[in-house]
Amino acid sequence: MRIIGIDPGSRATGYGVVDLEGQNLLHVAHGVIRVPSSLAQAARLAKIHRALAALVAEFEPQCAVIERVFLARNPKSAIVLGEARGAALAALAGSGLEVEEISAREVKQAVTGNGGATKSDVQTMVSRRLGLVSVPPSDAADALAIAIGRSQAGRLAGLEIRRGRRRPRRLADIARELS
Amino acid sequence: MRIIGIDPGSRATGYGVVDLEGQNLLHVAHGVIRVPSSLAQAARLAKIHRALAALVAEFEPQCAVIERVFLARNPKSAIVLGEARGAALAALAGSGLEVEEISAREVKQAVTGNGGATKSDVQTMVSRRLGLVSVPPSDAADALAIAIGRSQAGRLAGLEIRRGRRRPRRLADIARELS
Repeated sequence: MRIIGIDPGSRATGYGVVDLEGQNLLHVAHGVIRVPSSLAQAARLAKIHRALAALVAEFEPQCAVIERVFLARNPKSAIVLGEARGAALAALAGSGLEVEEISAREVKQAVTGNGGATKSDVQTMVSRRLGLVSVPPSDAADALAIAIGRSQAGRLAGLEIRRGRRRPRRLADIARELS
Repeated sequence: MRIIGIDPGSRATGYGVVDLEGQNLLHVAHGVIRVPSSLAQAARLAKIHRALAALVAEFEPQCAVIERVFLARNPKSAIVLGEARGAALAALAGSGLEVEEISAREVKQAVTGNGGATKSDVQTMVSRRLGLVSVPPSDAADALAIAIGRSQAGRLAGLEIRRGRRRPRRLADIARELS
Protein backbone atom coordinates (compact mmCIF):
# COMPACT_ATOMS: atom_id res chain seq x y z
CA MET A 1 0.00 0.00 0.00
CA ARG A 2 1.39 3.35 -1.08
CA ILE A 3 0.32 6.41 0.88
CA ILE A 4 0.77 10.07 0.04
CA GLY A 5 0.60 12.54 2.93
CA ILE A 6 -0.04 16.20 2.18
CA ASP A 7 0.54 19.27 4.31
CA PRO A 8 -1.11 22.09 2.33
CA GLY A 9 -0.28 25.76 2.61
CA SER A 10 -0.66 28.63 0.19
CA ARG A 11 3.11 29.26 0.04
CA ALA A 12 4.49 25.80 0.71
CA THR A 13 2.70 22.48 0.36
CA GLY A 14 4.63 19.50 1.71
CA TYR A 15 4.17 16.01 0.34
CA GLY A 16 5.54 12.68 1.46
CA VAL A 17 5.11 9.27 -0.11
CA VAL A 18 5.69 6.01 1.76
CA ASP A 19 5.08 2.35 1.02
CA LEU A 20 3.71 0.07 3.68
CA GLU A 21 4.85 -3.48 2.95
CA GLY A 22 3.75 -5.84 5.66
CA GLN A 23 5.39 -4.47 8.80
CA ASN A 24 7.85 -2.32 6.90
CA LEU A 25 7.57 1.32 6.06
CA LEU A 26 9.60 2.39 3.05
CA HIS A 27 10.39 5.93 2.05
CA VAL A 28 9.48 6.66 -1.56
CA ALA A 29 9.67 10.44 -1.98
CA HIS A 30 9.12 13.75 -0.29
CA GLY A 31 9.31 17.40 -1.18
CA VAL A 32 7.78 20.83 -0.95
CA ILE A 33 5.74 22.53 -3.65
CA ARG A 34 6.76 26.15 -3.27
CA VAL A 35 4.86 28.90 -5.03
CA PRO A 36 6.29 32.39 -5.28
CA SER A 37 4.49 34.87 -3.04
CA SER A 38 4.67 37.32 -5.95
CA LEU A 39 2.01 35.26 -7.73
CA ALA A 40 -1.68 36.03 -7.27
CA GLN A 41 -3.43 33.64 -4.88
CA ALA A 42 -5.49 32.00 -7.66
CA ALA A 43 -2.35 31.31 -9.70
CA ARG A 44 -0.67 29.79 -6.63
CA LEU A 45 -3.64 27.51 -6.09
CA ALA A 46 -3.58 26.43 -9.72
CA LYS A 47 0.11 25.54 -9.32
CA ILE A 48 -0.56 23.51 -6.18
CA HIS A 49 -3.36 21.69 -7.99
CA ARG A 50 -1.24 20.98 -11.04
CA ALA A 51 1.79 19.85 -9.05
CA LEU A 52 -0.20 17.46 -6.87
CA ALA A 53 -2.00 15.97 -9.87
CA ALA A 54 1.43 15.38 -11.45
CA LEU A 55 2.79 13.79 -8.26
CA VAL A 56 -0.18 11.44 -8.03
CA ALA A 57 0.28 10.48 -11.69
CA GLU A 58 3.99 9.82 -11.06
CA PHE A 59 3.84 7.90 -7.78
CA GLU A 60 0.39 6.31 -8.09
CA PRO A 61 -0.48 6.16 -4.37
CA GLN A 62 -3.54 4.14 -3.32
CA CYS A 63 -4.40 6.44 -0.46
CA ALA A 64 -4.08 10.16 0.28
CA VAL A 65 -4.04 11.64 3.76
CA ILE A 66 -4.31 15.19 4.96
CA GLU A 67 -4.36 16.64 8.45
CA ARG A 68 -7.76 17.36 9.95
CA VAL A 69 -8.17 21.01 10.86
CA PHE A 70 -10.50 22.03 13.63
CA LEU A 71 -9.51 25.59 14.25
CA ALA A 72 -7.38 28.21 12.66
CA ARG A 73 -5.94 31.15 14.49
CA ASN A 74 -8.42 33.55 12.93
CA PRO A 75 -11.05 33.57 10.18
CA LYS A 76 -8.77 35.39 7.72
CA SER A 77 -5.98 32.81 7.95
CA ALA A 78 -8.66 30.08 7.96
CA ILE A 79 -9.86 31.24 4.52
CA VAL A 80 -6.32 31.25 3.11
CA LEU A 81 -5.52 27.85 4.61
CA GLY A 82 -8.88 26.55 3.41
CA GLU A 83 -8.10 27.71 -0.13
CA ALA A 84 -4.82 25.80 -0.19
CA ARG A 85 -6.57 22.74 1.20
CA GLY A 86 -9.33 23.10 -1.40
CA ALA A 87 -6.88 23.17 -4.30
CA ALA A 88 -5.03 20.15 -2.86
CA LEU A 89 -8.15 18.13 -2.09
CA ALA A 90 -9.61 18.83 -5.54
CA ALA A 91 -6.38 17.58 -7.14
CA LEU A 92 -6.25 14.41 -5.02
CA ALA A 93 -9.92 13.50 -5.41
CA GLY A 94 -9.82 14.60 -9.05
CA SER A 95 -7.07 12.03 -9.57
CA GLY A 96 -9.39 9.33 -8.28
CA LEU A 97 -8.02 9.07 -4.73
CA GLU A 98 -10.06 8.87 -1.59
CA VAL A 99 -8.72 11.40 0.85
CA GLU A 100 -8.57 10.48 4.51
CA GLU A 101 -8.11 12.87 7.37
CA ILE A 102 -6.05 12.34 10.49
CA SER A 103 -5.66 14.58 13.51
CA ALA A 104 -2.38 16.30 14.36
CA ARG A 105 -2.38 14.49 17.69
CA GLU A 106 -2.71 11.07 16.04
CA VAL A 107 0.15 11.94 13.70
CA LYS A 108 2.46 13.04 16.51
CA GLN A 109 1.50 10.06 18.64
CA ALA A 110 2.20 7.64 15.82
CA VAL A 111 5.52 9.17 14.83
CA THR A 112 7.04 10.18 18.15
CA GLY A 113 4.95 8.31 20.73
CA ASN A 114 3.87 11.67 22.14
CA GLY A 115 0.71 13.45 21.01
CA GLY A 116 2.11 16.78 22.13
CA ALA A 117 5.48 16.53 20.32
CA THR A 118 7.10 19.62 18.79
CA LYS A 119 7.63 20.18 15.07
CA SER A 120 11.32 19.53 15.54
CA ASP A 121 10.65 16.20 17.34
CA VAL A 122 8.49 15.16 14.39
CA GLN A 123 11.21 16.12 11.91
CA THR A 124 13.84 14.11 13.79
CA MET A 125 11.67 11.03 14.29
CA VAL A 126 10.45 11.00 10.68
CA SER A 127 13.98 10.93 9.32
CA ARG A 128 15.08 8.34 11.88
CA ARG A 129 12.12 6.08 11.18
CA LEU A 130 12.49 6.27 7.44
CA GLY A 131 16.28 6.02 7.61
CA LEU A 132 16.75 9.27 5.74
CA VAL A 133 20.28 10.57 5.35
CA SER A 134 19.25 14.18 5.91
CA VAL A 135 16.36 15.74 7.82
CA PRO A 136 13.63 16.82 5.37
CA PRO A 137 12.37 20.41 5.41
CA SER A 138 9.60 20.97 7.92
CA ASP A 139 6.66 20.93 5.47
CA ALA A 140 7.88 17.70 3.85
CA ALA A 141 8.58 16.12 7.26
CA ASP A 142 5.02 16.98 8.33
CA ALA A 143 3.65 15.38 5.16
CA LEU A 144 5.75 12.23 5.71
CA ALA A 145 4.57 12.15 9.32
CA ILE A 146 0.95 12.32 8.13
CA ALA A 147 1.56 9.38 5.79
CA ILE A 148 3.34 7.44 8.56
CA GLY A 149 0.51 8.26 10.97
CA ARG A 150 -2.01 6.85 8.54
CA SER A 151 0.05 3.73 7.89
CA GLN A 152 0.39 3.08 11.58
CA ALA A 153 -3.31 3.67 12.25
CA GLY A 154 -4.07 0.97 9.68
CA ARG A 155 -1.52 -1.43 11.15
CA LEU A 156 -2.67 -0.77 14.68
CA ALA A 157 -6.21 -1.74 13.79
CA GLY A 158 -4.92 -4.84 12.04
CA LEU A 159 -2.72 -5.79 14.99
CA GLU A 160 -5.56 -5.40 17.42
CA ILE A 161 -7.67 -7.78 15.46
CA ARG A 162 -4.94 -10.34 14.88
CA ARG A 163 -3.10 -10.27 18.17
CA GLY A 164 -5.09 -8.18 20.59
CA ARG A 165 -2.17 -5.77 20.88
CA ARG A 166 -3.01 -2.21 21.72
CA ARG A 167 0.37 -0.62 21.20
CA PRO A 168 2.00 -0.31 17.81
CA ARG A 169 5.26 -2.16 17.30
CA ARG A 170 8.31 0.01 16.94
CA LEU A 171 9.11 0.42 13.28
CA ALA A 172 12.35 -1.29 12.32
CA ASP A 173 15.05 0.84 10.84
CA ILE A 174 14.43 0.31 7.17
CA ALA A 175 17.33 2.35 5.83
CA ARG A 176 19.03 -0.71 4.34
CA GLU A 177 15.91 -1.61 2.42
CA LEU A 178 15.93 1.65 0.54
CA SER A 179 17.29 1.30 -2.94
CA MET B 1 -15.41 41.44 -22.97
CA ARG B 2 -16.89 38.28 -21.45
CA ILE B 3 -16.93 38.00 -17.68
CA ILE B 4 -17.64 34.98 -15.50
CA GLY B 5 -18.70 35.64 -11.93
CA ILE B 6 -18.42 32.85 -9.38
CA ASP B 7 -20.06 32.43 -5.99
CA PRO B 8 -18.33 29.39 -4.49
CA GLY B 9 -19.75 27.15 -1.79
CA SER B 10 -19.08 23.55 -0.88
CA ARG B 11 -22.67 22.50 -1.62
CA ALA B 12 -23.66 25.00 -4.29
CA THR B 13 -21.39 27.10 -6.47
CA GLY B 14 -23.16 29.73 -8.54
CA TYR B 15 -21.83 30.97 -11.86
CA GLY B 16 -22.94 33.74 -14.14
CA VAL B 17 -21.56 34.76 -17.52
CA VAL B 18 -22.18 38.17 -19.09
CA ASP B 19 -20.85 40.00 -22.13
CA LEU B 20 -20.00 43.67 -21.90
CA GLU B 21 -20.33 45.19 -25.37
CA GLY B 22 -19.73 48.93 -25.23
CA GLN B 23 -22.42 50.20 -22.88
CA ASN B 24 -24.50 47.05 -23.11
CA LEU B 25 -24.54 44.15 -20.76
CA LEU B 26 -25.72 40.88 -22.29
CA HIS B 27 -26.71 37.77 -20.41
CA VAL B 28 -24.87 34.68 -21.65
CA ALA B 29 -25.47 31.95 -19.10
CA HIS B 30 -25.95 31.20 -15.44
CA GLY B 31 -26.40 28.19 -13.22
CA VAL B 32 -25.55 26.42 -10.02
CA ILE B 33 -23.05 23.58 -9.65
CA ARG B 34 -24.65 21.42 -6.98
CA VAL B 35 -22.73 18.63 -5.34
CA PRO B 36 -24.50 16.00 -3.25
CA SER B 37 -23.85 16.40 0.46
CA SER B 38 -23.52 12.60 0.59
CA LEU B 39 -20.16 12.94 -1.19
CA ALA B 40 -16.95 13.35 0.78
CA GLN B 41 -15.66 16.92 0.86
CA ALA B 42 -12.64 16.15 -1.36
CA ALA B 43 -14.89 14.57 -4.00
CA ARG B 44 -17.17 17.62 -3.91
CA LEU B 45 -14.21 19.91 -4.42
CA ALA B 46 -13.01 17.82 -7.36
CA LYS B 47 -16.48 18.14 -8.91
CA ILE B 48 -16.49 21.91 -8.46
CA HIS B 49 -13.05 22.10 -10.04
CA ARG B 50 -14.02 19.91 -12.98
CA ALA B 51 -17.32 21.71 -13.60
CA LEU B 52 -15.74 25.17 -13.56
CA ALA B 53 -12.93 24.09 -15.89
CA ALA B 54 -15.59 22.77 -18.27
CA LEU B 55 -17.59 26.02 -18.07
CA VAL B 56 -14.52 28.11 -18.83
CA ALA B 57 -13.73 25.85 -21.80
CA GLU B 58 -17.30 26.23 -23.05
CA PHE B 59 -17.87 29.96 -22.60
CA GLU B 60 -14.29 31.22 -22.93
CA PRO B 61 -14.56 34.26 -20.65
CA GLN B 62 -11.69 36.77 -20.65
CA CYS B 63 -12.09 37.62 -17.01
CA ALA B 64 -13.14 35.80 -13.85
CA VAL B 65 -14.44 37.50 -10.73
CA ILE B 66 -15.08 36.21 -7.25
CA GLU B 67 -16.29 37.94 -4.13
CA ARG B 68 -13.65 39.11 -1.70
CA VAL B 69 -14.09 37.55 1.73
CA PHE B 70 -12.86 39.34 4.81
CA LEU B 71 -14.50 37.41 7.58
CA ALA B 72 -16.44 34.27 7.98
CA ARG B 73 -18.80 33.54 10.84
CA ASN B 74 -16.33 31.23 12.52
CA PRO B 75 -13.02 29.51 11.78
CA LYS B 76 -14.68 26.16 11.05
CA SER B 77 -17.00 27.57 8.37
CA ALA B 78 -14.09 29.68 7.11
CA ILE B 79 -12.10 26.51 6.37
CA VAL B 80 -15.01 24.93 4.51
CA LEU B 81 -15.72 28.10 2.55
CA GLY B 82 -12.00 28.49 1.86
CA GLU B 83 -11.82 24.96 0.50
CA ALA B 84 -14.63 25.64 -1.98
CA ARG B 85 -12.95 28.89 -2.99
CA GLY B 86 -9.61 27.09 -3.38
CA ALA B 87 -11.06 24.48 -5.74
CA ALA B 88 -12.80 27.22 -7.76
CA LEU B 89 -9.78 29.54 -7.91
CA ALA B 90 -7.47 26.68 -8.92
CA ALA B 91 -9.86 25.79 -11.76
CA LEU B 92 -10.15 29.38 -13.00
CA ALA B 93 -6.44 30.20 -12.83
CA GLY B 94 -5.60 26.71 -14.10
CA SER B 95 -7.66 27.55 -17.19
CA GLY B 96 -5.46 30.57 -17.80
CA LEU B 97 -7.77 33.23 -16.37
CA GLU B 98 -6.75 36.02 -14.09
CA VAL B 99 -9.13 36.10 -11.18
CA GLU B 100 -10.23 39.45 -9.81
CA GLU B 101 -11.89 40.05 -6.50
CA ILE B 102 -14.67 42.46 -5.72
CA SER B 103 -16.26 43.28 -2.38
CA ALA B 104 -19.87 42.36 -1.59
CA ARG B 105 -20.60 46.05 -1.05
CA GLU B 106 -19.30 47.02 -4.50
CA VAL B 107 -21.41 44.28 -6.05
CA LYS B 108 -24.59 45.39 -4.28
CA GLN B 109 -23.89 49.04 -5.02
CA ALA B 110 -23.34 48.31 -8.71
CA VAL B 111 -26.40 46.14 -9.12
CA THR B 112 -28.98 47.81 -6.90
CA GLY B 113 -27.50 51.25 -6.19
CA ASN B 114 -27.40 50.32 -2.49
CA GLY B 115 -24.34 48.78 -0.86
CA GLY B 116 -26.50 47.34 1.92
CA ALA B 117 -29.09 45.64 -0.34
CA THR B 118 -30.61 42.31 0.64
CA LYS B 119 -30.08 39.04 -1.25
CA SER B 120 -33.61 39.28 -2.58
CA ASP B 121 -33.02 42.86 -3.87
CA VAL B 122 -29.96 41.58 -5.71
CA GLN B 123 -31.92 38.70 -7.23
CA THR B 124 -34.66 41.03 -8.46
CA MET B 125 -32.32 43.66 -9.87
CA VAL B 126 -30.09 41.12 -11.60
CA SER B 127 -32.99 39.62 -13.50
CA ARG B 128 -34.41 43.06 -14.33
CA ARG B 129 -31.07 44.40 -15.56
CA LEU B 130 -30.34 41.37 -17.69
CA GLY B 131 -33.92 41.11 -18.92
CA LEU B 132 -34.30 37.57 -17.67
CA VAL B 133 -37.69 35.95 -17.97
CA SER B 134 -37.41 34.25 -14.59
CA VAL B 135 -35.51 35.10 -11.44
CA PRO B 136 -32.36 32.94 -11.19
CA PRO B 137 -31.71 30.86 -8.07
CA SER B 138 -29.94 32.81 -5.36
CA ASP B 139 -26.43 31.40 -5.91
CA ALA B 140 -26.60 32.04 -9.67
CA ALA B 141 -28.04 35.53 -9.11
CA ASP B 142 -25.14 36.32 -6.78
CA ALA B 143 -22.68 35.11 -9.40
CA LEU B 144 -24.35 37.21 -12.12
CA ALA B 145 -24.30 40.19 -9.74
CA ILE B 146 -20.56 39.69 -9.20
CA ALA B 147 -20.00 39.68 -12.97
CA ILE B 148 -22.22 42.76 -13.38
CA GLY B 149 -20.39 44.48 -10.53
CA ARG B 150 -17.07 43.88 -12.25
CA SER B 151 -18.36 45.07 -15.62
CA GLN B 152 -19.65 48.26 -14.07
CA ALA B 153 -16.44 48.89 -12.13
CA GLY B 154 -14.54 48.70 -15.42
CA ARG B 155 -16.97 51.03 -17.16
CA LEU B 156 -16.99 53.41 -14.24
CA ALA B 157 -13.23 53.75 -14.40
CA GLY B 158 -13.45 54.28 -18.15
CA LEU B 159 -16.19 56.87 -17.78
CA GLU B 160 -14.25 58.75 -15.15
CA ILE B 161 -11.29 59.07 -17.45
CA ARG B 162 -13.28 60.00 -20.52
CA ARG B 163 -15.95 62.23 -19.05
CA GLY B 164 -15.08 62.94 -15.47
CA ARG B 165 -18.28 61.20 -14.38
CA ARG B 166 -18.26 59.64 -10.94
CA ARG B 167 -21.58 57.84 -11.06
CA PRO B 168 -22.26 54.89 -13.30
CA ARG B 169 -24.92 55.28 -15.94
CA ARG B 170 -28.04 53.22 -15.48
CA LEU B 171 -27.78 50.10 -17.57
CA ALA B 172 -30.31 50.03 -20.37
CA ASP B 173 -32.77 47.20 -20.43
CA ILE B 174 -31.07 44.85 -22.82
CA ALA B 175 -33.72 42.14 -22.96
CA ARG B 176 -34.44 42.76 -26.64
CA GLU B 177 -30.80 42.28 -27.50
CA LEU B 178 -30.79 38.77 -26.15
CA SER B 179 -31.02 36.16 -28.86
